[in-house]
Amino acid sequence: MSRGVCRLREVVRFDEEADVLVVGLGAAGAAAALGAREAGATVAILEAGSGGGGTSALSGGVLYLGGGTALQRACGFEDTPEAMFRYLIASCGDAPDEAKVARYCEGSAAHFDWLVHCGVPFKPTFYEGVSGEPPTDDGLVWSGSERCHPYAGLARPAPRGHVPQQPHQTGPLLMRRLLAAVEAAGAAVRPSHRVVALVQDDDGAVVGAVAERFGERRALRARGGVVLCTGGFIHDDDMLSRHLPRVLRCKVRVGAEGDDGSGIRLGLAAGGSALHLDKASISLPVTQPWGLKRGVLVNARGQRFVNEDAYYGCLGEAALFGQDGRAWLIVDDAIFEEPEYVKRVAAVGETPEELGRELGLPPGSLESTLVLYNRHAARGEDPVFHKRREYLRPLETPPFGAIDCTTEGAIYAAFTLGGLRTDVAGRVLDAYGEPVPGLFAAGRATSGVSAGGYSSGLSLGDGTFFGRIAGRAAATG
Amino acid sequence: MSRGVCRLREVVRFDEEADVLVVGLGAAGAAAALGAREAGATVAILEAGSGGGGTSALSGGVLYLGGGTALQRACGFEDTPEAMFRYLIASCGDAPDEAKVARYCEGSAAHFDWLVHCGVPFKPTFYEGVSGEPPTDDGLVWSGSERCHPYAGLARPAPRGHVPQQPHQTGPLLMRRLLAAVEAAGAAVRPSHRVVALVQDDDGAVVGAVAERFGERRALRARGGVVLCTGGFIHDDDMLSRHLPRVLRCKVRVGAEGDDGSGIRLGLAAGGSALHLDKASISLPVTQPWGLKRGVLVNARGQRFVNEDAYYGCLGEAALFGQDGRAWLIVDDAIFEEPEYVKRVAAVGETPEELGRELGLPPGSLESTLVLYNRHAARGEDPVFHKRREYLRPLETPPFGAIDCTTEGAIYAAFTLGGLRTDVAGRVLDAYGEPVPGLFAAGRATSGVSAGGYSSGLSLGDGTFFGRIAGRAAATG
Repeated sequence: MSRGVCRLREVVRFDEEADVLVVGLGAAGAAAALGAREAGATVAILEAGSGGGGTSALSGGVLYLGGGTALQRACGFEDTPEAMFRYLIASCGDAPDEAKVARYCEGSAAHFDWLVHCGVPFKPTFYEGVSGEPPTDDGLVWSGSERCHPYAGLARPAPRGHVPQQPHQTGPLLMRRLLAAVEAAGAAVRPSHRVVALVQDDDGAVVGAVAERFGERRALRARGGVVLCTGGFIHDDDMLSRHLPRVLRCKVRVGAEGDDGSGIRLGLAAGGSALHLDKASISLPVTQPWGLKRGVLVNARGQRFVNEDAYYGCLGEAALFGQDGRAWLIVDDAIFEEPEYVKRVAAVGETPEELGRELGLPPGSLESTLVLYNRHAARGEDPVFHKRREYLRPLETPPFGAIDCTTEGAIYAAFTLGGLRTDVAGRVLDAYGEPVPGLFAAGRATSGVSAGGYSSGLSLGDGTFFGRIAGRAAATG
Repeated sequence: MSRGVCRLREVVRFDEEADVLVVGLGAAGAAAALGAREAGATVAILEAGSGGGGTSALSGGVLYLGGGTALQRACGFEDTPEAMFRYLIASCGDAPDEAKVARYCEGSAAHFDWLVHCGVPFKPTFYEGVSGEPPTDDGLVWSGSERCHPYAGLARPAPRGHVPQQPHQTGPLLMRRLLAAVEAAGAAVRPSHRVVALVQDDDGAVVGAVAERFGERRALRARGGVVLCTGGFIHDDDMLSRHLPRVLRCKVRVGAEGDDGSGIRLGLAAGGSALHLDKASISLPVTQPWGLKRGVLVNARGQRFVNEDAYYGCLGEAALFGQDGRAWLIVDDAIFEEPEYVKRVAAVGETPEELGRELGLPPGSLESTLVLYNRHAARGEDPVFHKRREYLRPLETPPFGAIDCTTEGAIYAAFTLGGLRTDVAGRVLDAYGEPVPGLFAAGRATSGVSAGGYSSGLSLGDGTFFGRIAGRAAATG
């Protein structure tokens, strides 16, 4: 039989049975287990590592939620599912799944309440100072490009980054609470179980899994279904080289070592199909502190290519995929601040011409770009990329500098966004768009809400949201 | 059982048997049938239409071949497999399959001889006048970006477009000759047979196919293997909307109606995996006559984004995927000629400023671009995009005009490049990179030599090349 699949009739006996088998215990797997337990199902969770956590426990812990959550309201922000939907559809790449985005936005406020119910604490205060992950224990932050062109004109902006209450890097807290909830709910956790095959019956229905534990094979029966929550493939060089070769050049790969594509391959082997394997979230945290948004990002032709006040998740994607990872943030002496993350100065010059020469840009190109930029910026305008007025000021105070935003010199933090194609019930779909019976998936083993243009918190957000749904669906078979 | 697959034990009886079943009778299918017959196999070809031809018979008939073919030598051009390899690896998108490209280049000269042996005539003369498809019956043309930056510096350029001897649109001639060879070779053609499922045995090996003919189902056994040569998915709106949404906006979809993704789905259902479904060839034939390469292509920000002398297959990809299909070719009165294909003039102005205003470009942006371009062009240089000297001249003679290169106003001719993942023997590979036993594929049902940056003739080239190989491999099982 082909790899990744085991026929039911080849299984001599099952070592264990449960209504629902969850594969992988990050945030999506925890939510799937909780969802299945809520529906009354018995649950066994097969985790390849020695304990739960996964990439979620290494993350910043931000959940992208909105539509008027209790936390948004407590902080005085109005938001609607419609505004959230419009923002996500406009920002999440070329071909976001509209049905999935709609379901996510409609259920987002209730999902926040559920997370609180699961024991995840959120302080009802708003942090204005930075996007993404606040250094304080505040609960709400901006974590996307909502206030930037063109999104601000398409949908009323609202901050939607929901952060568990703890300063910095709240992923571990989020996972501690979710794992405690999983334990309290009575789901059985099976660590050191690496699933090597799904068990299919003669009709192609997934009815179990085969796991390896310390070299020994164990067969587990799933009466209802199997939910794959195994994460993405940022650590699989083979898949990256075929689908995302440029990501191999990124300095930071965001993900626990289990993000090796194994669950995606299992799902494909069982008849599922994949979507958006060529898409990734690429963060380029070069505009921190935010005053650096007053700089000008240029490519190897000396041209601007993005509004510099876009969220750093967008900057990296634009620079890596649109400009082959060749970019520099041009600043002058008046706006220069020590960057928080991207430290390397590629060149300094007394004039834009000198700076351009040092960088090896085409003669005249950087000067041309700055002349046009400065002329508009002096009037507080940016008709080319529509950077917000507060970040517009002519760059004219020597010396001029170029902060290195190439893949060689800067931090590009990458994780994959593509995976198994699922419907709004978390069912894995085959090449004809029909469900593979008994097979479900959630989190970054799937293609989720975002197919590009990433906003922070979307993976923990859609992973827990659709994880819970998939767990419930698997429970009812 | 899931759609697209039929279990062997569900087949009551086979209506017909052959060593090799070929699905689809375009150029790839014809080559597969011939390859299988050369290996001594009996062959049945299942064609959904009423006769063979497919997209190949609608095409320009150009085959991209090189490495020193008899035709290249007869026309006085030197070429080597190494030069061809370097060009294709550099030009064929982000992640071309190196093993496949290498095999293709090594075997290209012999493949040309084989085509001649099959009865395809080529006149040993070179046509200098235009790229792609000559209006004469000359046999050799430029059909890619070999002479352009950066390729000219990476590999010695040679024309590699091999065109069967007939003026204009030689696809029908190519297919007439290949179909005659198929008939002479004794392969059985079964028209009006639409394959709806592959037959798999209990070990997952493909051992046949089920076809519908006039509403009746016929089961055909393949003793050696099945070769899918069903074409791409340019006519499947559902797949396009998920993988290539921008292609839905292209005015011209290049493909016979059978290019509906059906063979790709069959292969996926049988356990194969897919590659590069998000890639397409997009031709934007705006620089014909060639004098129009002296114009300047700008995007909605008034910036240049490509060297205008690149092959028109590259221009469309850069404009559609990089600029969201928003582009204009700026010309002045001195270089204006009546364009052959893209006729709509979007705006005219006495000055670049007026033209930019008419087009709605950001104030000052077009002027800025032209000032920089003109300054360098006056010296015969283009340090920004490295357009060749012969197409460089300042645009300064009013009135100025903008030829509409938006998806709304221009011809974007698209076909898909992604498909089943195959190895150099034409075997369909699963998610683990292992062959699906008994299953082979070729042509645009597969991801072939090109994963972007298209040069004309690569599809007929790799379709016939790997089609023949796949047919031979299927014959030996």
